[in-house]
Amino acid sequence: MMKKRVLILNGPNLNLLGKRETEVYGSKDFESFFLALKKNFEDEVTLEYYQSNIEGELINKLHEVGFSFEGIIFNPGGYTHTSVALHDAIKAISSPVIEVHMTNIHSREEFRHVGITSAASLGVVSGFGLWSYEMALQFLLDNYAG
Amino acid sequence: MMKKRVLILNGPNLNLLGKRETEVYGSKDFESFFLALKKNFEDEVTLEYYQSNIEGELINKLHEVGFSFEGIIFNPGGYTHTSVALHDAIKAISSPVIEVHMTNIHSREEFRHVGITSAASLGVVSGFGLWSYEMALQFLLDNYAG
Amino acid sequence: MMKKRVLILNGPNLNLLGKRETEVYGSKDFESFFLALKKNFEDEVTLEYYQSNIEGELINKLHEVGFSFEGIIFNPGGYTHTSVALHDAIKAISSPVIEVHMTNIHSREEFRHVGITSAASLGVVSGFGLWSYEMALQFLLDNYAG
Amino acid sequence: MMKKRVLILNGPNLNLLGKRETEVYGSKDFESFFLALKKNFEDEVTLEYYQSNIEGELINKLHEVGFSFEGIIFNPGGYTHTSVALHDAIKAISSPVIEVHMTNIHSREEFRHVGITSAASLGVVSGFGLWSYEMALQFLLDNYAG
Amino acid sequence: MMKKRVLILNGPNLNLLGKRETEVYGSKDFESFFLALKKNFEDEVTLEYYQSNIEGELINKLHEVGFSFEGIIFNPGGYTHTSVALHDAIKAISSPVIEVHMTNIHSREEFRHVGITSAASLGVVSGFGLWSYEMALQFLLDNYAG
Amino acid sequence: MMKKRVLILNGPNLNLLGKRETEVYGSKDFESFFLALKKNFEDEVTLEYYQSNIEGELINKLHEVGFSFEGIIFNPGGYTHTSVALHDAIKAISSPVIEVHMTNIHSREEFRHVGITSAASLGVVSGFGLWSYEMALQFLLDNYAG
Amino acid sequence: MMKKRVLILNGPNLNLLGKRETEVYGSKDFESFFLALKKNFEDEVTLEYYQSNIEGELINKLHEVGFSFEGIIFNPGGYTHTSVALHDAIKAISSPVIEVHMTNIHSREEFRHVGITSAASLGVVSGFGLWSYEMALQFLLDNYAG
Amino acid sequence: MMKKRVLILNGPNLNLLGKRETEVYGSKDFESFFLALKKNFEDEVTLEYYQSNIEGELINKLHEVGFSFEGIIFNPGGYTHTSVALHDAIKAISSPVIEVHMTNIHSREEFRHVGITSAASLGVVSGFGLWSYEMALQFLLDNYAG
Amino acid sequence: MMKKRVLILNGPNLNLLGKRETEVYGSKDFESFFLALKKNFEDEVTLEYYQSNIEGELINKLHEVGFSFEGIIFNPGGYTHTSVALHDAIKAISSPVIEVHMTNIHSREEFRHVGITSAASLGVVSGFGLWSYEMALQFLLDNYAG
Amino acid sequence: MMKKRVLILNGPNLNLLGKRETEVYGSKDFESFFLALKKNFEDEVTLEYYQSNIEGELINKLHEVGFSFEGIIFNPGGYTHTSVALHDAIKAISSPVIEVHMTNIHSREEFRHVGITSAASLGVVSGFGLWSYEMALQFLLDNYAG
Amino acid sequence: MMKKRVLILNGPNLNLLGKRETEVYGSKDFESFFLALKKNFEDEVTLEYYQSNIEGELINKLHEVGFSFEGIIFNPGGYTHTSVALHDAIKAISSPVIEVHMTNIHSREEFRHVGITSAASLGVVSGFGLWSYEMALQFLLDNYAG
Amino acid sequence: MMKKRVLILNGPNLNLLGKRETEVYGSKDFESFFLALKKNFEDEVTLEYYQSNIEGELINKLHEVGFSFEGIIFNPGGYTHTSVALHDAIKAISSPVIEVHMTNIHSREEFRHVGITSAASLGVVSGFGLWSYEMALQFLLDNYAG
Repeated sequence: MMKKRVLILNGPNLNLLGKRETEVYGSKDFESFFLALKKNFEDEVTLEYYQSNIEGELINKLHEVGFSFEGIIFNPGGYTHTSVALHDAIKAISSPVIEVHMTNIHSREEFRHVGITSAASLGVVSGFGLWSYEMALQFLLDNYAG
Repeated sequence: MMKKRVLILNGPNLNLLGKRETEVYGSKDFESFFLALKKNFEDEVTLEYYQSNIEGELINKLHEVGFSFEGIIFNPGGYTHTSVALHDAIKAISSPVIEVHMTNIHSREEFRHVGITSAASLGVVSGFGLWSYEMALQFLLDNYAG
Repeated sequence: MMKKRVLILNGPNLNLLGKRETEVYGSKDFESFFLALKKNFEDEVTLEYYQSNIEGELINKLHEVGFSFEGIIFNPGGYTHTSVALHDAIKAISSPVIEVHMTNIHSREEFRHVGITSAASLGVVSGFGLWSYEMALQFLLDNYAG
Repeated sequence: MMKKRVLILNGPNLNLLGKRETEVYGSKDFESFFLALKKNFEDEVTLEYYQSNIEGELINKLHEVGFSFEGIIFNPGGYTHTSVALHDAIKAISSPVIEVHMTNIHSREEFRHVGITSAASLGVVSGFGLWSYEMALQFLLDNYAG
Repeated sequence: MMKKRVLILNGPNLNLLGKRETEVYGSKDFESFFLALKKNFEDEVTLEYYQSNIEGELINKLHEVGFSFEGIIFNPGGYTHTSVALHDAIKAISSPVIEVHMTNIHSREEFRHVGITSAASLGVVSGFGLWSYEMALQFLLDNYAG
Repeated sequence: MMKKRVLILNGPNLNLLGKRETEVYGSKDFESFFLALKKNFEDEVTLEYYQSNIEGELINKLHEVGFSFEGIIFNPGGYTHTSVALHDAIKAISSPVIEVHMTNIHSREEFRHVGITSAASLGVVSGFGLWSYEMALQFLLDNYAG
Repeated sequence: MMKKRVLILNGPNLNLLGKRETEVYGSKDFESFFLALKKNFEDEVTLEYYQSNIEGELINKLHEVGFSFEGIIFNPGGYTHTSVALHDAIKAISSPVIEVHMTNIHSREEFRHVGITSAASLGVVSGFGLWSYEMALQFLLDNYAG
Repeated sequence: MMKKRVLILNGPNLNLLGKRETEVYGSKDFESFFLALKKNFEDEVTLEYYQSNIEGELINKLHEVGFSFEGIIFNPGGYTHTSVALHDAIKAISSPVIEVHMTNIHSREEFRHVGITSAASLGVVSGFGLWSYEMALQFLLDNYAG
Repeated sequence: MMKKRVLILNGPNLNLLGKRETEVYGSKDFESFFLALKKNFEDEVTLEYYQSNIEGELINKLHEVGFSFEGIIFNPGGYTHTSVALHDAIKAISSPVIEVHMTNIHSREEFRHVGITSAASLGVVSGFGLWSYEMALQFLLDNYAG
Repeated sequence: MMKKRVLILNGPNLNLLGKRETEVYGSKDFESFFLALKKNFEDEVTLEYYQSNIEGELINKLHEVGFSFEGIIFNPGGYTHTSVALHDAIKAISSPVIEVHMTNIHSREEFRHVGITSAASLGVVSGFGLWSYEMALQFLLDNYAG
Repeated sequence: MMKKRVLILNGPNLNLLGKRETEVYGSKDFESFFLALKKNFEDEVTLEYYQSNIEGELINKLHEVGFSFEGIIFNPGGYTHTSVALHDAIKAISSPVIEVHMTNIHSREEFRHVGITSAASLGVVSGFGLWSYEMALQFLLDNYAG
Repeated sequence: MMKKRVLILNGPNLNLLGKRETEVYGSKDFESFFLALKKNFEDEVTLEYYQSNIEGELINKLHEVGFSFEGIIFNPGGYTHTSVALHDAIKAISSPVIEVHMTNIHSREEFRHVGITSAASLGVVSGFGLWSYEMALQFLLDNYAG
């Protein structure tokens, strides 16, 4: 049996995790979290990681893996609330996309309450810090065959 | 070490699960799902279940367990989008409340996009069918001491 | 041939009919109107009546009769304009629901112009006083087999 | 005793009934429905019929009969949602005007939820197909002396 | 010197003046007012009168006289608030158009506060009953050469 | 001379006073405040108290006392901003209803600025902690005969 | 017979007429216009003039003359669109107030389309340059006895 | 093979082309443009032309040809932005309707940005002067069999 | 012990009390009410009174007493709904400011529902006629030491 | 005579044409369409093609060719509705830009009805599938000299 | 060569600087800042200062100096967001007006995001504390001849 | 003492300065302006310059210098009004960011009035052409130590 492939895709500013507004996002950097996660689940899944601040590069990545991977865990950052183009990209591909947010977007600024990309995703996990990624991953492993 | 206590709290119309609009919500009834879940996690947690269609009874239940339980998994159904009173109740208690939805509320009707109760919750899991509950439970067990 | 069963379901404040703002709603109480109506149509239909001021009890009643009765005539009162939960309940059942209002909601306050429950109903009769109920009943008798 | 006079007034596109979007409006044409209705009630009422696609001609007709007939059953079609001029015309006359719609306007597109003419009418019957006309007629016959 | 030509153009429902909602619009009919006005000013101006309930006929009339008359006094009635087509017609012609209203539109219903045709007119006189017409006429005579 | 009867009616979450968000609402529980108040004014008024988290039970209570008591002091909590049904209930009864809030609703979240029930009340006292109740009571005693 | 008294009241920036944006407002100053007008009508009316840039002084002036003069011709300038206090002042007095504007406010910036003071005035004359004042004056002389 | 039939349908004020606001719409009149176009394409299509300023006459024309012609090129002028009745008419017929505008409606006034009729049309060509018609015609000839 | 100092500050049009719209505001003038109030409470408080129709003079007065008085009872009249400058002034000073209104602003025109100054005040008393002032005063005396 | 140069510029997700939501966009890929088009018009025009999912790269391309090419045919995809930066870029260059869409944006989701880039373009062709490009090209060839 | 004249004009509440909300505005009073500034630039410019809490007095001052001074540095305080009258005054005069704010208005309350006066000014400097004034002054000295 | 480092960061379309809409932005190109500025201040500051049309590259640059430079002068161009991602980037770094605009954004199109990036910046300088940059630079040099 082939191992499943899942992409973790991070949008703008998430490269600064552990450095940026630490009272909101915590002081752990994403890379070390990712390595631990990858190791933890290595029997079940090949986990890949990609980050970009550029909206179009995120679209490109979705196109690239979106017809072959078993799942995509996507944190679109600030693009969540404005990007019709990413909404279209998620709709255009066939892999299931789960949107994750570290903070609860419903209890933050008004302009974060509209979820343009969320409407195109399979589901949303929001508010559990880095655990949001793990919850999404567990769901994909339990539900999508490799 | 004492076992943790977690309440699953379901709002209006969720008693009809398995019977109601099965093309949207699936044909599995909630009770059998709950029993399986309870059994699965019985070593770690005492799982309780309560459902009501009455807004005020949900508030009462939140008050009743909200100062002693380790967590509450709450699907407020249609009250999600209108109830300031439930928002206040969630804020008033000290147990962490995780909001769950079986469907992705962002891709349904316009009036489901506003999350009044969501703003008071710790986080939101939305769009994974009955798995939404399990993802929330796993998070509580991993993060809150009994 | 079995007689049909139809429920008249009244929401909040309609128990005060005949006592409340009589210049708007008239001075006839609902019970005596109901008894006359019941008698008038007793050959064709078993007419039941239920009133509650509690949103959740109205949902319960819809669930209780909504898979067996030939029709429900529902005046949701003030919940018409706010209750997503009742909207869901109407959609969840299989009996046809006709929404009635004694006054013409389009010519009253702005906040009465939105009809959340109306969107889930089969149709709406609004503005004919107690006659609104009889018009709805006549429609059900003419169109739904017992 | 003189027979009552009631006008059925149909607005734009209703001349296409039976031909137009039959999955929404049914395949019966209005004229044959009208003739049957007229015949059915011929002892009680002189029923007239007028249809126009022209907003101003509808206003003219309202003016013409609106000071002498016992009632007007009016389906303003698409003008329901935009015509302040028809709203004013209904207010200007003395005959009672009942607005009817074959479909439930509350469950269709957003721009059909505003009822400019509805606010000037006595009441609204919406969602019962051709039966909407008959319900309105029965109300007029029961309540307005010839 | 040639006498000036001015058209008084009345929109929907103004043919009912003196008969319609007399507590709002007064009980004088427009025709007798017009004849008196015409007589009063006969040395200075040839006054013509046209009324229609049909939006497009009002447009036709504006086109017909709008390149030769010295002025048009226009009461668009309910079309004031909705008609982009009349707005375009006023802009398309070269005669000055003065909009008049018998009532003060700013103190009536919300939907009368938007003035689509007003934005294309030279100026607006609103709230002086039948005097509104005379004030507009006096302005035209004082300012536009025959 | 008979003593006056006044009801203090508290809506959702007010049973948690003294326990809930004490930095906002203070640490005094309502019952001991109520007993002191009752005692203080026992010569002038029979003070009753009722609290419920259930919207419909509040409506029931308003109906029960609203035709005989000299006044009702009502803190609708979160229902203030959403409940058309309570608005209707206040309008339906004859006793004067004074709305009270412990905090100043104008300086809190946006969704607390709309006062649906406030529009039906005689007046509003907002922002003085528990003193809000006493100010309302003093007004009733000074103005309404027993 | 006593001569009538009419006040012309000008709001902010109208003291700059003839100097300010002459392509919009013309190059005639208000004082010379006023003197000519006064002279023209001296047999019929005692015309007074007051200008202030201060909102409250305009209110004071309305109070001062508003119970004795036969009419007030008021150009509130920029306060037209924002002043609830002037709206209240116009409502508080008994003299008829006619609002005038030199330009057509409907064809200027969006924020000039709302007429807070207009809603309290008897009527509005807008768009005829300095003639707006004369049209208002003529109306007052024709309709209000001294 | 039969020649195709295509109707060019022009709404309000387009009869003034060449005379009206020539800096916006150009100085060519529509009739001479139409004759040239007709001649140019006479081998392929029978081109008909109809213009009316009356909304309901446009509806009538759509009904008349809308079940037999191969296409309709429709410039609804000012009705584009307001007419639900025309929207319904376009939906009611079976011929493809292409909406055309001479100017780019997106770069004009705010109230021209809403396209009520556009939502019911097959497609929209906007901003190319008289060429808009020719582009639409070419599309119909290339795509719809006679 | 020094007597407390409290200012009653009235905004625009309140100088007309007893003369203006007496069906809304009653026929008692403010000065006689003030003198009675002052006398009633003379043992406890030095009561001062100031009224102005000028927004900036109200700001000046707030600045003048707002660092030394024990309290300010402020009825901002029409400025309540529009004045950011008064909002800032209330925030800038240290004395507690209680906003009062004689009428219930929630049940009047839409534009009176926004409370710009209310958001900066300690609390609001609205709807009790002249009693609103006394309720506010009693609160200040009970809660703020001289 | 030099051949004209025209750029076809495609925005986000259009690289997936033929693969993505084929029931909406058809199953033809863009490249083969482009080659056929290029060949068809090779005598008249040098046709170039560029696609990017990255907003800024589209801006770069507009700058690069926008001062020398005879025309640009631009499908901004999801950026149509949000990009002020692309709006500015279109305005900044001198080549005529024609916006094209394969689907009729007026009949799709609400968020696609606003056209930020459309307002800066010469004209818009929307709803004709791949023919939209050809219609735009034909217009450029007929109207702009090489 | 004559020295330039520049006015610093401060609106409501700025007289309290150094005393008012010092955590937001700092503890330096404006007068000492002004004297230092005046001294610093005394070779180049005659600097004047005026402050008023009264909207109309600010308008008066703008009129007084606005046709002769080389520049005006204006902090309209709370009037920034509401005053159409000040907007008109700035437009009416010929001296360049630079709007300054000590705090960054874009990051404060929602109601401070609208800049009515800003739209009439030459430019805006916002968020640099007292330095905002100096930056504006330096610009005037560098760009406007005395 | 080390020289300070300041980055001037220009967003989309600013590379076209001097070529693009010269009546709005002037005919000077940015590079020559930058060189002069750099030279002028070379004793105090090391000035760097970066321009990109790509949103994500601007984010990357902010990340790169935003923890070490003494200041960033940022003109986000069209991204000012739409980019939540840039807003987050500015918040994520520690260097002070000053937003500059050559034109006064408050007096341009409606869609330029919202400042998403502005809310995250230290302050904003808007409307002074190329001087806006110099004013920002002078502020940084006066206030931030190297």
